[in-house]
Amino acid sequence: MSSAHDAVIDRSDSLHAKEWLRAYQRVRAATEAICAPLHKEDYMVQSMADVSPPKWHIAHVTWFFEAFILKPFYAAYQILDPAYDHLFNSYYETHGVPFPRAERGTLSRPTVDDVYRYRAHVDLAMQALLTDPPQEHLPEILRRLELGLPHEQQHQELLLMDIKHILAQNPLCPAYRDDLVPAHAPEVKALGWLAYRAGIQHIGHDASAGGFAYDNEMGRHRQFVEAFEIADRPVTNGEFLEFMQAGGYTKPEHWLADGWATVKAEGWQAPLYWVERDGVWHHYTLGGLVPVDMSAPVCHVSFFEADAYAQWAGARLPTEAEWETVARDVPLTGNFVDQDHLQPVATKRAEGMPSQMFGDVWEWTGSAYRPYPGFRKLPGSLGEYNGKFMSGQMVLRGGCCATPADHIRATYRNFFPPQARWAFSGFRLARDTDA
Amino acid sequence: MSSAHDAVIDRSDSLHAKEWLRAYQRVRAATEAICAPLHKEDYMVQSMADVSPPKWHIAHVTWFFEAFILKPFYAAYQILDPAYDHLFNSYYETHGVPFPRAERGTLSRPTVDDVYRYRAHVDLAMQALLTDPPQEHLPEILRRLELGLPHEQQHQELLLMDIKHILAQNPLCPAYRDDLVPAHAPEVKALGWLAYRAGIQHIGHDASAGGFAYDNEMGRHRQFVEAFEIADRPVTNGEFLEFMQAGGYTKPEHWLADGWATVKAEGWQAPLYWVERDGVWHHYTLGGLVPVDMSAPVCHVSFFEADAYAQWAGARLPTEAEWETVARDVPLTGNFVDQDHLQPVATKRAEGMPSQMFGDVWEWTGSAYRPYPGFRKLPGSLGEYNGKFMSGQMVLRGGCCATPADHIRATYRNFFPPQARWAFSGFRLARDTDA
Amino acid sequence: MSSAHDAVIDRSDSLHAKEWLRAYQRVRAATEAICAPLHKEDYMVQSMADVSPPKWHIAHVTWFFEAFILKPFYAAYQILDPAYDHLFNSYYETHGVPFPRAERGTLSRPTVDDVYRYRAHVDLAMQALLTDPPQEHLPEILRRLELGLPHEQQHQELLLMDIKHILAQNPLCPAYRDDLVPAHAPEVKALGWLAYRAGIQHIGHDASAGGFAYDNEMGRHRQFVEAFEIADRPVTNGEFLEFMQAGGYTKPEHWLADGWATVKAEGWQAPLYWVERDGVWHHYTLGGLVPVDMSAPVCHVSFFEADAYAQWAGARLPTEAEWETVARDVPLTGNFVDQDHLQPVATKRAEGMPSQMFGDVWEWTGSAYRPYPGFRKLPGSLGEYNGKFMSGQMVLRGGCCATPADHIRATYRNFFPPQARWAFSGFRLARDTDA
Amino acid sequence: MSSAHDAVIDRSDSLHAKEWLRAYQRVRAATEAICAPLHKEDYMVQSMADVSPPKWHIAHVTWFFEAFILKPFYAAYQILDPAYDHLFNSYYETHGVPFPRAERGTLSRPTVDDVYRYRAHVDLAMQALLTDPPQEHLPEILRRLELGLPHEQQHQELLLMDIKHILAQNPLCPAYRDDLVPAHAPEVKALGWLAYRAGIQHIGHDASAGGFAYDNEMGRHRQFVEAFEIADRPVTNGEFLEFMQAGGYTKPEHWLADGWATVKAEGWQAPLYWVERDGVWHHYTLGGLVPVDMSAPVCHVSFFEADAYAQWAGARLPTEAEWETVARDVPLTGNFVDQDHLQPVATKRAEGMPSQMFGDVWEWTGSAYRPYPGFRKLPGSLGEYNGKFMSGQMVLRGGCCATPADHIRATYRNFFPPQARWAFSGFRLARDTDA
Ligand SMILES: [Fe+3]
Ligand SMILES: [Fe+3]
Ligand SMILES: [Fe+3]
Ligand SMILES: [Fe+3]
Repeated sequence: MSSAHDAVIDRSDSLHAKEWLRAYQRVRAATEAICAPLHKEDYMVQSMADVSPPKWHIAHVTWFFEAFILKPFYAAYQILDPAYDHLFNSYYETHGVPFPRAERGTLSRPTVDDVYRYRAHVDLAMQALLTDPPQEHLPEILRRLELGLPHEQQHQELLLMDIKHILAQNPLCPAYRDDLVPAHAPEVKALGWLAYRAGIQHIGHDASAGGFAYDNEMGRHRQFVEAFEIADRPVTNGEFLEFMQAGGYTKPEHWLADGWATVKAEGWQAPLYWVERDGVWHHYTLGGLVPVDMSAPVCHVSFFEADAYAQWAGARLPTEAEWETVARDVPLTGNFVDQDHLQPVATKRAEGMPSQMFGDVWEWTGSAYRPYPGFRKLPGSLGEYNGKFMSGQMVLRGGCCATPADHIRATYRNFFPPQARWAFSGFRLARDTDA
Repeated sequence: MSSAHDAVIDRSDSLHAKEWLRAYQRVRAATEAICAPLHKEDYMVQSMADVSPPKWHIAHVTWFFEAFILKPFYAAYQILDPAYDHLFNSYYETHGVPFPRAERGTLSRPTVDDVYRYRAHVDLAMQALLTDPPQEHLPEILRRLELGLPHEQQHQELLLMDIKHILAQNPLCPAYRDDLVPAHAPEVKALGWLAYRAGIQHIGHDASAGGFAYDNEMGRHRQFVEAFEIADRPVTNGEFLEFMQAGGYTKPEHWLADGWATVKAEGWQAPLYWVERDGVWHHYTLGGLVPVDMSAPVCHVSFFEADAYAQWAGARLPTEAEWETVARDVPLTGNFVDQDHLQPVATKRAEGMPSQMFGDVWEWTGSAYRPYPGFRKLPGSLGEYNGKFMSGQMVLRGGCCATPADHIRATYRNFFPPQARWAFSGFRLARDTDA
Repeated sequence: MSSAHDAVIDRSDSLHAKEWLRAYQRVRAATEAICAPLHKEDYMVQSMADVSPPKWHIAHVTWFFEAFILKPFYAAYQILDPAYDHLFNSYYETHGVPFPRAERGTLSRPTVDDVYRYRAHVDLAMQALLTDPPQEHLPEILRRLELGLPHEQQHQELLLMDIKHILAQNPLCPAYRDDLVPAHAPEVKALGWLAYRAGIQHIGHDASAGGFAYDNEMGRHRQFVEAFEIADRPVTNGEFLEFMQAGGYTKPEHWLADGWATVKAEGWQAPLYWVERDGVWHHYTLGGLVPVDMSAPVCHVSFFEADAYAQWAGARLPTEAEWETVARDVPLTGNFVDQDHLQPVATKRAEGMPSQMFGDVWEWTGSAYRPYPGFRKLPGSLGEYNGKFMSGQMVLRGGCCATPADHIRATYRNFFPPQARWAFSGFRLARDTDA
Repeated sequence: MSSAHDAVIDRSDSLHAKEWLRAYQRVRAATEAICAPLHKEDYMVQSMADVSPPKWHIAHVTWFFEAFILKPFYAAYQILDPAYDHLFNSYYETHGVPFPRAERGTLSRPTVDDVYRYRAHVDLAMQALLTDPPQEHLPEILRRLELGLPHEQQHQELLLMDIKHILAQNPLCPAYRDDLVPAHAPEVKALGWLAYRAGIQHIGHDASAGGFAYDNEMGRHRQFVEAFEIADRPVTNGEFLEFMQAGGYTKPEHWLADGWATVKAEGWQAPLYWVERDGVWHHYTLGGLVPVDMSAPVCHVSFFEADAYAQWAGARLPTEAEWETVARDVPLTGNFVDQDHLQPVATKRAEGMPSQMFGDVWEWTGSAYRPYPGFRKLPGSLGEYNGKFMSGQMVLRGGCCATPADHIRATYRNFFPPQARWAFSGFRLARDTDA
């Protein structure tokens, strides 16, 4: 079993629980590796309500295993501190009252050391449970573990997003790491268009083919997708700068009404983290403040900015069905967290096929995040995992430079509100095929 | 020509501009009839930012004809007051700077009499223009008139919504009118379900068949709609009361996360305008405060409430494609403004076919308001009419008791934010067909 | 009896209640004269939370007589509408729940005509009561009438302040009246300083000398006032413009911390109602938009602006004890509402004595509004009249061009929050006497 | 020289700078002793905008010496990090742009260790400077040191206030220390009243008598204080509980209008930090959550609550002149930080003289914080120290259980907004002497 992903797609009876334990340990270790460069002070900051302090993240993912596996299925489990259940419940309203999200930054106790003790305590219990699991509960335990591991991987990406946002507030512009793998930036080629014919597409996760997927990727269903064309790579920083120089942020005609209101209210003039220094555009990265690489995909733009660019360029964003139709046939490789760039980078474009569908930047689609036909929530509190957020958000696809490679799929549906910019979010153009 | 609708679907060369003039006059007169019961004081109130003072509505619809027809195409037109262009532009950012929406209630001048003089001034000019139109501009004039008339009809419905909201704020609960047509409330039958097979559906306005439609109803395109079932009537007040009595407003498990946050922030405990008096639920209607008719469709609920009810009932809302598939074959009749109830009423259910698809209440669908494939904005400032609102809103279908009968179509897409409640909005259940 | 003031200072047994009735009728008529130029639409606007719609003012002052005189003391009184007690109670929390202040603009009913009927109804009852008063209650009736008449006069000034604010929001800049008495603007002389010696001063209303005063002007008490100097006239528009031109609104060193925060939050760059047109400063007046008269006292400045000007000028504002010490010996004449300028005007300065202490502009003092030693609230709900506002406000003295001449006294204490600007508020400089 | 206070009152030529150095080191060490029990995580929290993270406090007080002494007067001084000047400037707008106060909690860097290095760096430089001072600047250096030491002492008290607020947010209710000195709570005696005759009082710091005082305690001036009576001890928790049980928080008649609005907006039902557990009132203290000691002075009440209690009790708060008149003759002893209770405690009342005038709780007065006659701001940026806050705040007197004993004086004027509750603030009653 070479990765967490391999693990999570085989929940057969024959699989030993110990293999799951190894997957568990690998995912847990990856979280701690992400936090290794942090000072205790960094663990504490909540730079906006959407951001959680890193300390909270590492406690919360631990709580998930405690609340949904250890407490219900491990009779011998000893609770470390009963207060943690309240403090580290993120949003499961049917599982007690969550501590208010916007006040997570006020909790100095438990300390970072306490929280690592909590992790060790839960890890030990998980090890004991999976070493000698109660057979009658094993299928349900593994089903929840299969959700708990990608849950922690999602928080690994959130940790990187949040650490970036936290350090970027600081006038000192401190680097998170100074040993990131640099990009070899080739000259980016002109954008090409790929044409797809109209037809019925099967969209969503194919449960019969096995493998894990979130509830929101099901049910698999048919969609009629009219003929369309799609760009063979994402929009670059250089192209986005042309939009800026053409007055893109000052002309309401390109914008959705809510987007234009946001531009004015927030004073947006460039993507998040961009700052002009002596006439040169820089942006804050996890390696510090550097000049913008004009060949790399533009990142940290909202849906509103992606849509405005597309309108300005005479194009539009792809729907998620179009995107999935294209991505289905593309190898699942790319610039993921494993490449250790932690920043989107330019790639040599393959002729005649789409590049960078996976990795680099999450790609905003033109689709609102709503349930598929046949969608069913998970039973119990875990039913709150995805379904209740299906309002007011837009779908993004393909993963990014902060996503674990074994976490992503062609059917994976990420989602953020249209004004959100702190995810590694970019976009790719699409357009209707002329009759 | 029996209605404005008849007029607007025939823009042939052979049509005399005078027939258009009669349609114009009919629509204009309908607006003034709606305002006839108002005091000057009622014309002034802006009870929330979304509501406009009635005076503003009647000036704004007049401005639309002035700005988009008279100024560009009627050389002899004399502007009454140049300041009106700023005051009565609603949201056309590419046509000057609109006066701030939330401050419309601060404008005591021009007075109501001034605004009626403005209406008369523009009506006179429109009459002159259409009596002797410049032939080279006639097609464009009629195209804009074809948009201007339904625009004014939309504001007729908004006037009734806003008047209701304005008077409902008043502790005196004044009736707008005391001569409304009462409902003959038959006993409502048990809800029935109608089944539809899976298949490709053609969705959106069929331009080749003629008739007017907004840009957002195009382009016509194919959608694959999986098998589904739909309720044969909307949910009633009585049914919604069961949800309330089952603790619907107090249980987060039924709600979307944004919905639950809204329930708590706003303190919602019942639909808008409902108030309990001596243990009996009353609601404010345009005829005053009356006991709730338990057989009539529930009204003034948000998308969030409709969705929560559906989740509680083990069902869901229909998509707009499902709704349109059903509505396409239903006669376009119902309880519209012409019936003069100005309130949804119970109807005798027809066996084996859906009732009340049109009229009574706008029906929330589960579809976010986004462009159809092939959508094109109108050129110029009129391009701001619909397209820029395609973010953060949900689609409603079918018209309501405040909609002019000749304004609605099976393809008509109305839209409001998911928390909005002051429209005459209700809903109908749908569900997946079991395999 | 030549004025309301004369009336209110003689509450002797021998006075006929009919004389009081005439005073009542004179004050009531003055209110209606102020409203005569209004359209019904003007009566409806609440341009900010602090402003009340004129309709509300004229109903509220009527309610005062109904609630505090007619209901308790006139057994035959017939209530016109029981709902009015809730709608027109301003802030008397011990007299039922007042209708929310910020929502007064949402009440279209009762209409303006209804409210005038309410006035007539109460006036008739007051006439009946005072024509044949119940002897056992007469002293208390007259005591309350003595408060109710200046209460209505206060609202006369508020009406003018609020009407000005309402019409000033309108881009049409409509004039309230076009027949105001113009100012004969003499050349203003250089500012002179008048010196006062240190000593014990008796401050506050001298009850033994008779005459009406509000509770907040008592108890009369001793204050030791150190030697000081005071300017012989208020600061003029021309002088204030020098402060502006010296960058006064851009330099934090002149400002109180709360003042500077307000300047930045509100974007203040000039007094309220000032606007630059083609390089010339204009300001909105009740006669419309006119060039600023540089010789007239500056008006519509906040305490923060007055204090910042004083700091910039190396001076300070007088305390209210200093102001009263000076004013005590000055004739009670000036530019009041009776002069019908409705705007501060320049006056010829009298040599060696302070000018414009009364009228023109309310003068901000450096004193916070707090109770005098020996202050006693009135009994019952009327105790809420003044005392509960003694927090967070600053004292102003001397009346203004919108104050009835018979309403003002040397001991009169007006008060507003330090950021308020819609009163006719200006200021006069003071400074310590060098040792 | 036995204390910082002794040091700061003797700025004679003969004093060796080394004695000042020892005072400096003693004050600096006291700050670090306060922080010794903290975890790094505690240093980071900003629990509300008014609270600063402890890390910020210890850096800011260091910055004060760097900015106002080392940079101007120590030529050899090497700046450790130029960015700190921006980060740790609190509010000196004339000394660059301060980092936004409400965002202090977002700064994880410099770390706690970095900040202690900064302290050591500055301490070393101060040692060098004071060991061999430039004679021509020595008077100004000492003048600024004389301000810098009480400045740091003020922040010592703020540290304790802020640490309490930070830890109190935490549902775990962690104790700051578990080794505080417990109170020996004697039975509190009935409240007694002390009478003072009317007369001229000299108020404010007597510069001729020597000793340090803040600018806001000058100029010394005369006030006429009418006869009054004052309580011989502060109001206790037990007495305040009677007010609560009498419905004090539910009756608007006791409250200032702003106070009542705050009660409703904030949902106040008890002093800050009070919580009912199983029918017993507890409160959070720096030693953890404990039952309220009914004999100790009530603490963590706002001016609004103090004033409401006084109105309910038929009394009032003393003015600051009254308070100072009384305090002038009382020994400067009490429950200060040096007693290590860190909580107000009951004391045996001395017969015939006021007790607890100093220490235990800051006592709200009825006086707004405004300048004395003859007040002069310090020159330069230090002029922002006190003067610019003289708006919207009320004066408190006497120091508290978190105040260093050598920091307080009878003339000392503390100030907070009327709604503030996180200071150790209580109150004492006063009343007018009946004629
Ligand atoms: Fe989570
Ligand atoms: Fe419109
Ligand atoms: Fe009033
Ligand atoms: Fe400080």
